[in-house]
Amino acid sequence: MTIKSRLCKDLGLKYPIFQGGMAHISTGRMAAASSNAGGLGLICSSGLSAAQVAEEVALCKQLTDKPFGVNLMLQSPEIDDIVQVVLDNKVPVVTTGAGDPSRFMPALLAAGVKVIPVIPHVRAAQKAEKLGAYAVVAEGTESGGHIGEMTTLALVPQVIKAVNIPVLAAGGIADGKSMAAMMLLGAAGVQMGTVFLVADECPIDDAYKQRVLEAADTDTMVTGRGTSHVVRALKNPMMQKYAELEKQDGTEDERNALAGGALYKAVHGDMEGGCIMAGQIAGMVRGGGTIGGIMERIVAEAEETLGTAGNLLGE
Amino acid sequence: MTIKSRLCKDLGLKYPIFQGGMAHISTGRMAAASSNAGGLGLICSSGLSAAQVAEEVALCKQLTDKPFGVNLMLQSPEIDDIVQVVLDNKVPVVTTGAGDPSRFMPALLAAGVKVIPVIPHVRAAQKAEKLGAYAVVAEGTESGGHIGEMTTLALVPQVIKAVNIPVLAAGGIADGKSMAAMMLLGAAGVQMGTVFLVADECPIDDAYKQRVLEAADTDTMVTGRGTSHVVRALKNPMMQKYAELEKQDGTEDERNALAGGALYKAVHGDMEGGCIMAGQIAGMVRGGGTIGGIMERIVAEAEETLGTAGNLLGE
Repeated sequence: MTIKSRLCKDLGLKYPIFQGGMAHISTGRMAAASSNAGGLGLICSSGLSAAQVAEEVALCKQLTDKPFGVNLMLQSPEIDDIVQVVLDNKVPVVTTGAGDPSRFMPALLAAGVKVIPVIPHVRAAQKAEKLGAYAVVAEGTESGGHIGEMTTLALVPQVIKAVNIPVLAAGGIADGKSMAAMMLLGAAGVQMGTVFLVADECPIDDAYKQRVLEAADTDTMVTGRGTSHVVRALKNPMMQKYAELEKQDGTEDERNALAGGALYKAVHGDMEGGCIMAGQIAGMVRGGGTIGGIMERIVAEAEETLGTAGNLLGE
Repeated sequence: MTIKSRLCKDLGLKYPIFQGGMAHISTGRMAAASSNAGGLGLICSSGLSAAQVAEEVALCKQLTDKPFGVNLMLQSPEIDDIVQVVLDNKVPVVTTGAGDPSRFMPALLAAGVKVIPVIPHVRAAQKAEKLGAYAVVAEGTESGGHIGEMTTLALVPQVIKAVNIPVLAAGGIADGKSMAAMMLLGAAGVQMGTVFLVADECPIDDAYKQRVLEAADTDTMVTGRGTSHVVRALKNPMMQKYAELEKQDGTEDERNALAGGALYKAVHGDMEGGCIMAGQIAGMVRGGGTIGGIMERIVAEAEETLGTAGNLLGE
C-alpha cells in the first residue's frame, strides 16, 4: 500500500514530495537526483542568469527522464528571460516565490506549464487559484530561508479550507510522521528543503552539512522581521551581526553589505560570514545518505504511520 | 472506537484535551465546564491573588466532580501561597508557565500532584523530565498570549524524541484533523485555547468572541520579540501602538503603561485599548456553542480522521 495523491498522477511522480528550490543549492544535478528518486526536483533560478538557468535545465534533462521543475524567483532581474527558458525547454512545472506571478501566468498556462506558487497566507493562495495555478505550496515560518509569519500547522488547514486546488505543506517536515500528519490535514503532498541539505547529492560544503546535522531545535534565528526580506538561518556570527545592526538601527547599506552573497558564502563553506539557511526542523535531521535513500525512508515511515493510525483508537 | 491515550487513564479524563490556562479567562466556572465535557479544565492563576485562586478552586469543585487543574504562573508575586492553595485543595494536576518550577517540585510531587510544564523548546522539556514532571505541553509560537519561537510542527517531534514522558501539543490546533495530526506525530494529547474563547461558558465579552470568529489567518501580530515578554494577539490599536513604541525605541515604562491590564481590558470588551490574545488558528474558529459541544465535534472529527487515515493509501 502506497501513499495516494493526485499530485502523483497529474505530475507523473512516484511520491508527492517536492525538493524545495534553494538558491545556489538546488542545481540541475540535485534536481535530477530528486526526480530520479521519485519526487519532483526543482532547479532554483534565484541568483542565476537566464543563460545559467538554461545550462542547469539542460544538465537536469541529461541526468533524468523524469519530470522536474524550476523555481522562479520573481524579483530576479532576468525573470522574463528565465521564463522564456522554461517555455523553450518545455519544463513541466514551475514553483514561484518572492512576488506576484500574474504577469507570467498567461504564457505559462498557454504552454501547459503547471504553476505552483509558494504562498505564506490564505489571500495569496486565493489569488493563485484565481490566476489558474495548478496548486500552491503553503509554507510555514519554520522553514529555512525567506519566510512568512504563519506557521505550517496554522497555515495549511486554513489554505485547504479556502481553495479548491491541491495544497502542499512546507516547513517543519523532515520525516515520515510529519509527512503523514500533513496529509491527514488534507495536504496533497509536502515540500522539504532542510532534510535534503545533508544528502550526498546536495552541493553544499561539508561544513554546512555538519552544522545542520548538529543543530539543536533552537539553533535557528530570524532577521529582517517587519521588512519584506525575512530570513531564517542557523545562528552564527553573520546572523548575529545582522541582528545587532537591526537593533542599533544600522543603515540598510550596512545590512546589505553583510548579507550580500552570504548564502553563497555558506554554500562554499564560510560558517562565520555565510548565511547558513535551514529550518527549525534541522534539529530532527540526523541521517544523510542519498536523496533516494532519504525519500524512501520518509515515504516508508509515512505509509507505516498512516497505515497504523487506527491503532490510536480503541474500545 | 475512541481515541486512546495514557493521559485519559492517568488523569481520569474522557478525552486527552486540556483547556489551556488563559489569564482572566480560565475561571473556576470555565474549568469546571471543560472538565465536565471530558477534558481537563485548567484554572489560570495569573493575575489572581492566592485568595482568589482559592475561590476559583472552590467554585470549580462545586461545579464538577471531575479532575481539573491549576495553571501556575511562576512569576506571580503570590506564587508560594498559590502553590499552598493547590496543595491544601488536593488539586490533582498543575501546568506551569513563565519560569522555572524547580522550587515547587518537591512539595507538589510529595503531595501526588501531576506537574506538567508548558515548554517552548527541547531543553526545557528535558529539564522538566529530570525534575519529575508527569508530562509536558509543547507549545508552538502560533499560540495566543505569551509564546516562544519554535512552531508546533517543528517543536513537538523534537520534544517527543528527547524525552520519555507524555507530550501534549499546543498551538495551531482547533479542529479534529489537527488533533489527529498531532497524535500521529506521537503527542499524547492536545491543549487548546483559542477555540474555547468563543464557547458559551467562556467569560469574555461578546466583542472579543466576535473578533475571534471574524479573524483572518494573518490577523494576529507579535510584540516583544527579543525580550522575555513575547505576546501574540489580534491586531488592534493597542498592539499597533505597542509595536510603534518598539520601533521608536520607546521606554519600557511607556510600553508597560500601554500593556498593563490590557488583556483584562479586552476580556471586558475594550477592543481598542485591550490586548485581544488569540492564536494564528483563530482564522479556523467559526463555530461556537458549549465547551462540551466543541469538544465532541473535535473528538469526533479526530476519531474519524484517524480511523480513515488508511484511505490515504492505495495500490
